[in-house]
Amino acid sequence: MERIPILQMGEFLLVTIQVDMHDRLAMTLQDDLTNRISQTNASGVLIDISALDIVDSFIGRILGNIAKMSQVMDAETVVVGMQPAVAITLVELGLSLTGIRTALNVEKGMALLQATVGKAANAQFIATEWDLEDDAED
Amino acid sequence: MERIPILQMGEFLLVTIQVDMHDRLAMTLQDDLTNRISQTNASGVLIDISALDIVDSFIGRILGNIAKMSQVMDAETVVVGMQPAVAITLVELGLSLTGIRTALNVEKGMALLQATVGKAANAQFIATEWDLEDDAED
Repeated sequence: MERIPILQMGEFLLVTIQVDMHDRLAMTLQDDLTNRISQTNASGVLIDISALDIVDSFIGRILGNIAKMSQVMDAETVVVGMQPAVAITLVELGLSLTGIRTALNVEKGMALLQATVGKAANAQFIATEWDLEDDAED
Repeated sequence: MERIPILQMGEFLLVTIQVDMHDRLAMTLQDDLTNRISQTNASGVLIDISALDIVDSFIGRILGNIAKMSQVMDAETVVVGMQPAVAITLVELGLSLTGIRTALNVEKGMALLQATVGKAANAQFIATEWDLEDDAED
């Protein structure tokens, strides 16, 4: 069966979309990705769309869904490698990829993820410290 | 035009093959990859074939060619993510991927590349030191 491979790079997962997405392929990708996040305890997902010449509302919705699902599983999503022509068309069509963060390429996307995950970890750490202090005061 | 994206990860390039290779696509990939090695001064190439259900002699030859071209341009090539069934079929068909190094997944492939590149850099360094000594004796 056709499926899009998911590569693990440290604590992040990398998905390169090269083929035209159709309903079943998108469902399979969502299933595979959520399973992999759960198995690997990944903290971030990079989706590379540099091979896509067209990003329509269907692809936009899939990317949005993946971002939301990952978010629920405590993993950040960054879409990377959008072609200039795709960005122009998206704006001209009035399609905004709401809730999706983007970066120029994989390296910048990974840096963005690392910064976000690091900040989240710090916030968690501070929250834990506060909890401890609260406990101490009780 | 259809083309396989090449992602840069630090000093390595990552290529994920997901679609059936045909002659023109293979040629385009070879062109793109050699150009990218030259532009980015990459020291290693990772080729992920986890999406391929079949690796025949044509794919084998392409992988071999890419490995040789990269070698000439001073970049090592590692093929990663081969499916177990593919490995079994390759051996049963008597196809040996001569001159191609493999690793289980991207992370192990990257570690192998790093080890190889590090060793090569050391050898280069030692060779340079010898040259210096020779020069000093002259």
